[in-house]
Amino acid sequence: MNYFTRKKVKDILSGQVEDMSNITVLGWVRTKRVSKNIAFIEINDGSTLENLQIVILNPEEFEVLSDINTGSSLKVVGYLDEIKGREQSVEMKAEKIEIVGDCPSDYELQKKRHSFEYLREIAHLRPRTNTFGVVNRFRSKMSYAVHKFFQERGFNYIHTPIITANDTEGAGEIFRVSNFDLENLPLTDKGEVDYSQDFFGEETGLTVSGQLEAEVLASALGDVYTFGPTFRAENSNTARHVAEFWMIEPEMAFCNLEENMQVIEDFLKYLFKYALEECKEEMAFFNKWIADDNRVEKLEELIESDFDRVSYTDAIEILIEAEQDFEYDVEWGIDLQTEHERYLTEKHFKKPVMVTDYPREIKAFYMRLNDDGKTVRAVDCLVPGIGEIVGGSQREERYDLLVKMMEEDNMELDQYDWFLDLRKYGTVPHSGFGLGFERILMYISGINNIRDIIAFPRTPGNAKF
Amino acid sequence: MNYFTRKKVKDILSGQVEDMSNITVLGWVRTKRVSKNIAFIEINDGSTLENLQIVILNPEEFEVLSDINTGSSLKVVGYLDEIKGREQSVEMKAEKIEIVGDCPSDYELQKKRHSFEYLREIAHLRPRTNTFGVVNRFRSKMSYAVHKFFQERGFNYIHTPIITANDTEGAGEIFRVSNFDLENLPLTDKGEVDYSQDFFGEETGLTVSGQLEAEVLASALGDVYTFGPTFRAENSNTARHVAEFWMIEPEMAFCNLEENMQVIEDFLKYLFKYALEECKEEMAFFNKWIADDNRVEKLEELIESDFDRVSYTDAIEILIEAEQDFEYDVEWGIDLQTEHERYLTEKHFKKPVMVTDYPREIKAFYMRLNDDGKTVRAVDCLVPGIGEIVGGSQREERYDLLVKMMEEDNMELDQYDWFLDLRKYGTVPHSGFGLGFERILMYISGINNIRDIIAFPRTPGNAKF
Repeated sequence: MNYFTRKKVKDILSGQVEDMSNITVLGWVRTKRVSKNIAFIEINDGSTLENLQIVILNPEEFEVLSDINTGSSLKVVGYLDEIKGREQSVEMKAEKIEIVGDCPSDYELQKKRHSFEYLREIAHLRPRTNTFGVVNRFRSKMSYAVHKFFQERGFNYIHTPIITANDTEGAGEIFRVSNFDLENLPLTDKGEVDYSQDFFGEETGLTVSGQLEAEVLASALGDVYTFGPTFRAENSNTARHVAEFWMIEPEMAFCNLEENMQVIEDFLKYLFKYALEECKEEMAFFNKWIADDNRVEKLEELIESDFDRVSYTDAIEILIEAEQDFEYDVEWGIDLQTEHERYLTEKHFKKPVMVTDYPREIKAFYMRLNDDGKTVRAVDCLVPGIGEIVGGSQREERYDLLVKMMEEDNMELDQYDWFLDLRKYGTVPHSGFGLGFERILMYISGINNIRDIIAFPRTPGNAKF
Repeated sequence: MNYFTRKKVKDILSGQVEDMSNITVLGWVRTKRVSKNIAFIEINDGSTLENLQIVILNPEEFEVLSDINTGSSLKVVGYLDEIKGREQSVEMKAEKIEIVGDCPSDYELQKKRHSFEYLREIAHLRPRTNTFGVVNRFRSKMSYAVHKFFQERGFNYIHTPIITANDTEGAGEIFRVSNFDLENLPLTDKGEVDYSQDFFGEETGLTVSGQLEAEVLASALGDVYTFGPTFRAENSNTARHVAEFWMIEPEMAFCNLEENMQVIEDFLKYLFKYALEECKEEMAFFNKWIADDNRVEKLEELIESDFDRVSYTDAIEILIEAEQDFEYDVEWGIDLQTEHERYLTEKHFKKPVMVTDYPREIKAFYMRLNDDGKTVRAVDCLVPGIGEIVGGSQREERYDLLVKMMEEDNMELDQYDWFLDLRKYGTVPHSGFGLGFERILMYISGINNIRDIIAFPRTPGNAKF
């Protein structure tokens, strides 16, 4: 099938193919134009956004031409020819064309444009469009960037469990995982569902965060990170919510909140820089067709800026004094809404800002209590155009205080004995944060619906494909 | 907390620290020996297997010494000193020692050795042992190797859905995912569970394979790979089964079975080589303490060997003629058992061998039918010491034949309309394979229980941590 000997379009167009003759290309037809003396086929093989132009100098000798449609898969043999004064430097003169797979005319991806809404319905075909080809290649490259950043800094990639009996965030929006036959549930003597008879012998669900397990591994390996799927059974039909998404959660031993913030800033800037330098084609596409501002310029500005820092308490003061009407009233103790976050980063600081030391009541049980007894060492990183993009904290490493906070939150200590053990045996200050992978991809690209940045989105009522 | 300014033990011991004075080290105590005129502390910070030796020349001036136990976390400031004629080239003379976190004497990881069985019970502490520190760092490095191999070859990393309504392998061992309150199941008029009222509006479960979705993306991007969690609700308590594990599934457009086998061979050799070259410390450890043979030598042999190829039909002949009694009788049509696989690769071929073209009846519906009408283009790669390590196939790209096979298997065609569309619109020959990540790590390391190669294993009755 010439899998190894064919040339990829990306390599051809970027001048990496030296011998210009006897070239085989394998790909899908994007357009075909046939006239009496010449014919052109644009072919795409998924390696790059660009198509390779195939030129047929003697169309009458290629009977196959009439059977070729948009979407057909082809094997083309020929030679490369330099062309001057055009955007592309190379085209291919066809010597042999073979149809690998037909494409009937009811193929939905003809040349006309489709709405993103419609393309979601045909998520199995949309990766063949320009936009979703770019999105998928971008996602792949940026995934690699995540690994590169951490691996080059000595972090260990860890796989935390997907099926778990914990609820890290205590939010309760957990999908149940079970091996029960629902038509035949085993019951206890009291008539309640007998979870001891389920596969794991207890109630289990899909993880909402790998953090607690990451703390275990950071307490042994020092620096670790997760990069895996995470779940929320949240009945939200918004452009920012899906039930299944990928999260990155670094956890660092011997690291306090200030140092954590530095890692957050370094990491975000690394991702921005990687996008600009290693995803040039994708960024040019987003800039031209997707984003409603100049993303390239914006990212360049962010890379040059020093992220600001402000305490939650000071941020509340700023918001109270702001000459802007907010939908949600501002007073100390509230959880910041997106409108507040955006005011802070866009209007007041005019750059990314880390808000720290939130009220204990609105944050998770594991965050380190400050000496004031009412705030915790949390940080949210806010960026212009979106608001919160990263949430993190220094963790409570003091056994007695952690137990106290868990008791106040009515948590079952028994179930977290292993988590508490980390504070019993050689406890260390440690910190970490979480970054939603789709969220950062949306931010960099300007794609504004999360359903368009993940190949097969899971939302209420939708588990197709 | 000196997170950025401290030196990691790995860098110190590998000579990457230039200025030998005013060094800060953060880590956990492995052992302490105190005598009148000198004291020694071995400290480990998780960056490497090796400990750094801390030397205290004037123990009487360090009151803190008496409170330091195995497991305590410390901050040590001092200077580095070269030592000659010893395995390690550097030790640290302490100027200041601070206990960061105490460790009471009921800490279970004292110097004595624990069985792997016992350590599984304390999976939250075992990463602190030599063996599990090595295992976790090895897993991280090998994960990166997986990405490197594919990214350097132009493959796109894809995230296929975890929650799905499909059952790729048709094996039925699927965990159910639901948002139902089991004490209060909604029923239809007929008294059956009303799945239309569940979160996704239909029955859903945890994926057993990302292959079908990978085929979608390969049909647009060319070369793709998954690397993510996969699930089996299989009630097996063996050393090779867990309910949740990580799989690598590459899928290549325009690729036939022979080419697929070449990718499999290249990939396995790349991983073996990466382990030998980039995980020297880990491989030396496995070789000395874990494997019951010389893994380093074995891997070197595998890298040099050309993997053999044999058809299933010929393999059956070989087994029938073998001068060995098998527990399971051999005849054409059987699924090969591990004893058969190991005979072929260890005794007959004496090297890795790819067995191809299995009977259609014992393989999945999507494999490409051969012209004989009774075998399919499947391949299993067998390696000495284990048997099957990779399973793959060329996929059936012909619409009519695929429909016929799905009908024969009584599958609901409606649910797979999107999968069939790939064969309708510009179909291409394509192939792929699956490699269990834990399986290959076990093979390379010699670790012989899968529960010891994954940080928090999920098995029947066990979802702790």
